Order: sequence, then C-alpha cells, then structure tokens
Amino acid sequence: MPKLSQRGLSMPASPIRKLVPFAEAAKKRGVKIYHLNIGQPDILTPPSAMDAVRHTDLKVLEYSHSAGFESYRRKLAGYYAKLGVSIDHTQVIVTTGGSEAISFGFMSCLDPGDEIIIPEPLYANYNGFACAGSLTVRPVTATIENNFALPPISEFEKAITPKTRAIMICNPGNPTGYLYSLEELQALRDLVIKYDLFLFADEVYREFVYGENKFHSILSLEGLEKHAIVIDSISKRYSACGARIGMLVSRNPEVMDAALRFAQARLSPPTLEQILGEATLDVPDSYLADVNREYDARRRLLVERIQAIPGVVCPNPGGAFYVLVRLPVDDADTFCRWMLESFDHQGETVMMAPGSGFYATPGLGRQEARLAYVLKQEDLERAVECLAKGLEAYNAR
Amino acid sequence: MPKLSQRGLSMPASPIRKLVPFAEAAKKRGVKIYHLNIGQPDILTPPSAMDAVRHTDLKVLEYSHSAGFESYRRKLAGYYAKLGVSIDHTQVIVTTGGSEAISFGFMSCLDPGDEIIIPEPLYANYNGFACAGSLTVRPVTATIENNFALPPISEFEKAITPKTRAIMICNPGNPTGYLYSLEELQALRDLVIKYDLFLFADEVYREFVYGENKFHSILSLEGLEKHAIVIDSISKRYSACGARIGMLVSRNPEVMDAALRFAQARLSPPTLEQILGEATLDVPDSYLADVNREYDARRRLLVERIQAIPGVVCPNPGGAFYVLVRLPVDDADTFCRWMLESFDHQGETVMMAPGSGFYATPGLGRQEARLAYVLKQEDLERAVECLAKGLEAYNAR
Repeated sequence: MPKLSQRGLSMPASPIRKLVPFAEAAKKRGVKIYHLNIGQPDILTPPSAMDAVRHTDLKVLEYSHSAGFESYRRKLAGYYAKLGVSIDHTQVIVTTGGSEAISFGFMSCLDPGDEIIIPEPLYANYNGFACAGSLTVRPVTATIENNFALPPISEFEKAITPKTRAIMICNPGNPTGYLYSLEELQALRDLVIKYDLFLFADEVYREFVYGENKFHSILSLEGLEKHAIVIDSISKRYSACGARIGMLVSRNPEVMDAALRFAQARLSPPTLEQILGEATLDVPDSYLADVNREYDARRRLLVERIQAIPGVVCPNPGGAFYVLVRLPVDDADTFCRWMLESFDHQGETVMMAPGSGFYATPGLGRQEARLAYVLKQEDLERAVECLAKGLEAYNAR
Repeated sequence: MPKLSQRGLSMPASPIRKLVPFAEAAKKRGVKIYHLNIGQPDILTPPSAMDAVRHTDLKVLEYSHSAGFESYRRKLAGYYAKLGVSIDHTQVIVTTGGSEAISFGFMSCLDPGDEIIIPEPLYANYNGFACAGSLTVRPVTATIENNFALPPISEFEKAITPKTRAIMICNPGNPTGYLYSLEELQALRDLVIKYDLFLFADEVYREFVYGENKFHSILSLEGLEKHAIVIDSISKRYSACGARIGMLVSRNPEVMDAALRFAQARLSPPTLEQILGEATLDVPDSYLADVNREYDARRRLLVERIQAIPGVVCPNPGGAFYVLVRLPVDDADTFCRWMLESFDHQGETVMMAPGSGFYATPGLGRQEARLAYVLKQEDLERAVECLAKGLEAYNAR
C-alpha cells in the first residue's frame, strides 16, 4: 500500500473539528449549544449583494480572469483608497477566500524548509498552510499578561535564522482581538527592512475596531512597498464566509507576477461569488457601522461578564470579534470537551475553541480558550452563565 | 529587497495567457478571433442549476462543511453508482474546482522533491501544481504517430526512481482527446501495484466519449482501492467552468483523511456554487446526451476539415473536446502568435494553444497546437478556413 507524504501525515487537523463529534452527541441528547467556537457571524449578508447573484442573467458560467473580474479589482482599488492606501487594480488579485491568498503569498515567497516568524497565539490555519507548503513556522510568544501585545523586537531578532524569509501578523488578531499600534507596526517595518524580509499582514478584521483604537494597514507604512503583502477577505466584513472571496494585495510587482502565475494554474476564483463580492462594494457604509456597533456592544457585554467569573483572565480586545481567555482549569482541551460531553446548565452548554490549537509551541495555551462573540447579546449572556456554572462544576468534580 | 522563492520564480506562466496581449491587439484592429485556444465551452449551463442559485433563500452565506455539503456528497455517491463505481459520501470531498482536488491529492501523497510520472503531452497546469508543491514531473512521451496512446509500460518503468510516488493520467485526455482502453488501464494498474505507487486519474471529461468508444474509470478496476485517486469537476460536464466545483474521490481512507485536513485549512468550498453543483445532479440525462451529440458533430466536422489541410496531422480523438494537431510550420509558438499579430482572412483569425506548453520535455511539441472544439459548427468551419489560409500565407512569407 503506497504511503502518504510527510506533509500529508503531519498536516494538523482543525482544533475545532476535533470537538465536533462531542457537540453532535450533545445535540442528540437534546442539549442546546452556544457556538462561541467558530468565527461564523450570525449577521445578515447584505441582502443587496445576495440579490446581485439572484438577478444575474449569466447563461454560461464561464471562467473569469485568473486575477478576478477587472471591474471588481478596479472597484477594490477605490475601497483601499478610502482606507488611505493607494493601489491600482494590478496590485490586487481576487482569491478563493483569504485562505488562497495566504497560499499564493507563502508559495511566492517561501520554499520548502524556509521559515516564517509569526507571533503566537496565532490563527491555527497558518500552521496548516505552512505544512502544506513544507515551511516552518517559528513562533514568537505574546502573553496574556501583556494583553497579547507585540512581543519585543529582540525576541523576533532571536528567532531570525538564515532560512527566515518573512514575518506574519494578523491585525486585528484572530484569536486574540489584539490591535497593533502604529508604533508596533513601525517597529516591524524597521525589522523587515533591516533583515530584508517580507511582512505579511492578515487584515481581514480591519473594519472591526472599537473605542478610541485606530487601525493602520501595513500598506500605509512608507518604505514597505517591496515588503508588504496583505491578506484580505469579504468573509467577516460582509458576513459572507461561504463566498470564499478574498484578496492578495501588494505593491511588489514581482510578488504579484508570481502570485498571478499560481492563480493561472487554478484558472479563476468563483464567478458567482465574485458578483456578490463586487456588489458588496456598493453596500452603504451604514451596514458596516451598524455591524460594528453590534459587535462593540457584544464585546463590552462579554468582557464584563467574563471578567466577573472568579479566576478568569480576559484581556479587553481592540478589534476583531474574539477574546482569548485564561480559565481556572488544569487543561482547557479537556474542559472544552467536558463541557460538551458531561455538562449542561438547564439543558444548555457552550462550545469554545481550546487555546492549545492557537500556539505553535507545544504545551502553551493549555489553560486558554477562544470565544467568538458572533451571537446576539441575550445568547452571549446565557453562554457566559453556562461557562461560569461549568467552571464551578468542573472544578468541584 | 526580499527575494522570491525558487518555486515563485520558476512557476510556469499559462502558455495560453502569453498570447492574450496579441489577441487583444488584434481585436483592437477590428479582427474577429475564433477562440479554439481554451476549453471554455459555449454550451449553456443547465438553466435549472442556475435557477437553483437564483432562488436560494439563504440569509447568511455561511461556511459549509470542509468536505462540502453532506447532501451533495450523498447525491454524488449516487452519480458514481450510475457509472458502476460504488463509493459512499465519505469517499468524496467537494473541492474548489478540479484544480484544488489536484493540489490536495498531490500534497497528501507527495513531498518536495518527490516525483510523479505523467504521460505527455499533458494538461499544462499539472506542471504548475507540481511546481507549487515543489514536486518533479517525470514525463513519458506519447507520440502523435501513435495517436497519443499510452506509451509502452517499459517506458514508465525506465522513468521510475526511488523518489517516484505516483503516476497520473488524464482520461479522456486534455490536450489530446485520447481515451485509454481497458487494457491500457489494466497495464497501469499492474504497474502501480508492482511498484506501490498512487495512480491519479483526471476524469473530468468522462461524459464526452464518441463513437464505439467506452470510458473506464480507474475506480472500477479491482485491486486499486488503496492506489486510485480520481480528480473530477462539473466545469466541463455542465459548462460551469466558473463555478469552481470539483471533487477528489478515493477509497483509500488515509488519503481521504489527509485531504480532509488540507480541506479544513482552507475552510470550505464556495457555498452558492455548491447549490448549483448539487442541482446539476437533477438535470435530466437528455442535457448531457444533447451536449454529447453536439460535441460529436463538431469533432467529426473539425477532424474532417483539418485532415484535408495539406501537411496537417490530426488524430481522431475518442473523447473530451480537443485535438492536438501537427502543423506544417517551423515553430507553432511563432505561428500561433503570427496568426494573431500579422494575419487575418476576411477580417478573421484563429487563436490556438501552442503545443510546446503541453510537454514537460523541453523542445517537444514545437510543431503542434491544441484546438478546442467549443464553438458552434459554422464558426468551426470558418476557423478551419482561417487556419488553412493562415498556413498558406505563413509558409509563403
């Protein structure tokens, strides 16, 4: 029998999927589950964008340009201009989700065995894309005590080896919600210029920023024209996760040329969903303002209630729609599973993503869990109540 | 300035895209171009499948299961059963086009530096996916004199090294239209069992088979349960190239488990297009019968007319909708470009895909070109007339 590849064998399973069988069993027992485990918003996809697909008069569902509709890319240039980022339509490729933008970016810049430095906790699938490309993720650890701020630049410098080709951040961060300050981004800029590295930024949550905080794109930093590669997506912004429409954005023409050749090999991004994506650019600003207000209210509610649970540490995130919390338990993997397998509070429980899946360093995050505030406020209140009661019961076993 | 990766630098550009600027310039001069260069059918996508998307009442465009809708996969199992292939819904993963199925299959089975043997002429993008995965394609050459039949098994055995992990075929073939006989497939089966290799078959054209020919899936061969991996797609079958809906099918549970982990990293295939895909399975058989009849008529017309051009060699294909022809020219790359740049016949010309892009061995295919019969018959007639006049004029320069 032929053997799998090493990368096939070592490809990580989704840390959330591991819990799915236990969630399914709980549902079969009649337990209601509050899903704080996945970044699937309950927000309506803009109806006008859905209608754009419903009203298409396409007769033959043809390939599009490998970089995506030119009309869409020209409009996207207008969207970035509003963010203060001046690019043209040749500096953006429409990809099949932000996921494919990561793949194209990694493959264009890194060869098997090359290293990419990523602050952890990190979006678990970065590990997966690194494994797929036979790359090595070198984590630099951010701590909950420091609210998951950027680790000291000296820690990055210690992690740099002759094989290091890039640094990657997620801003605002999944799973932490941490929003990088301009000073932190400038420090990263100086670092990548000093060591001649690429800087990847996954900015798919940039519209979800709260309070006095301000988002800064790495594309708006001077001196990074050849270094900066941005991952973008409509999944979260317009609650269109299933559209699989993302973007790769860079001013480095060599990167865009290589990425386009990877894009040509897979022919084109989905045509119908590009119609939807292009239509999202005509959605009035009030849609995002309303969504932002709703997430902000959820964030304040969730953080306040969670911080009130004895023994729980919960930094207040500046953006995105996640909190990464420390729980007073021996092992959050076990606890998250126990919450599904052995617990309910008045017939209800909570599903969370165990923290260990968000670290590349083995053993870290064992007391942490990520909660996505993608449910309406009354459900969040109930979910936190379940979590509090669950912690009590778990530790009283 | 940071440097691209080796695979980014060596990733092949689409051989067809290279001609696009010349085609655009020709259009600007007012020349009408018959596009025989790309497998984009003019056939209507089944209106009922398009309507399924138009009538969706989805409010939130959510992620689907990473392997695709379970309902779709269960129906697909029924589709394969009709082909005489008994699989269940866990043995198929819905992918973002056949392209992603190739990626998942390659990554699950091959590591950087590993080798895959593919008969050439081959679908150009196989080279691209191999480059993306840092794999090496070892071609075994099929010849136009032999109608592009499977090369002798002894040639495959000569190409096998300790790094060989798999053999891949396209059946019926792009770019040749060659349909493998049961005996050829059985010979390949014996070979992969003997050397413990995976056998990939890209069967996306399986519905397009002409005359007395009969299609055989590698999934229907006994003894290949652990070896056979099939690439599938609705792109050609239902003229839905832009849907980007494909499938990876295997009875090897380890391969499916690894492929699912790659699928989880990219979250899910497009949701709206899966609705379309699932609806294609309710399209009456008469749709495919009609399409098949139309392609068959085009094939007979094209082959007859092309074979009548002095000096042209054109095997009669058993399937798909391509012919790979030998032209009486010094260099088909130059000729195909010249047809766009410097020639028209009564204001019209033909765009073809130069043969060199379909070979992994440098220097082969220099006199060949691929023609896709994806236009209506009267256009094909005009296109062949342009080709005949073009050859005369080119060789009289």
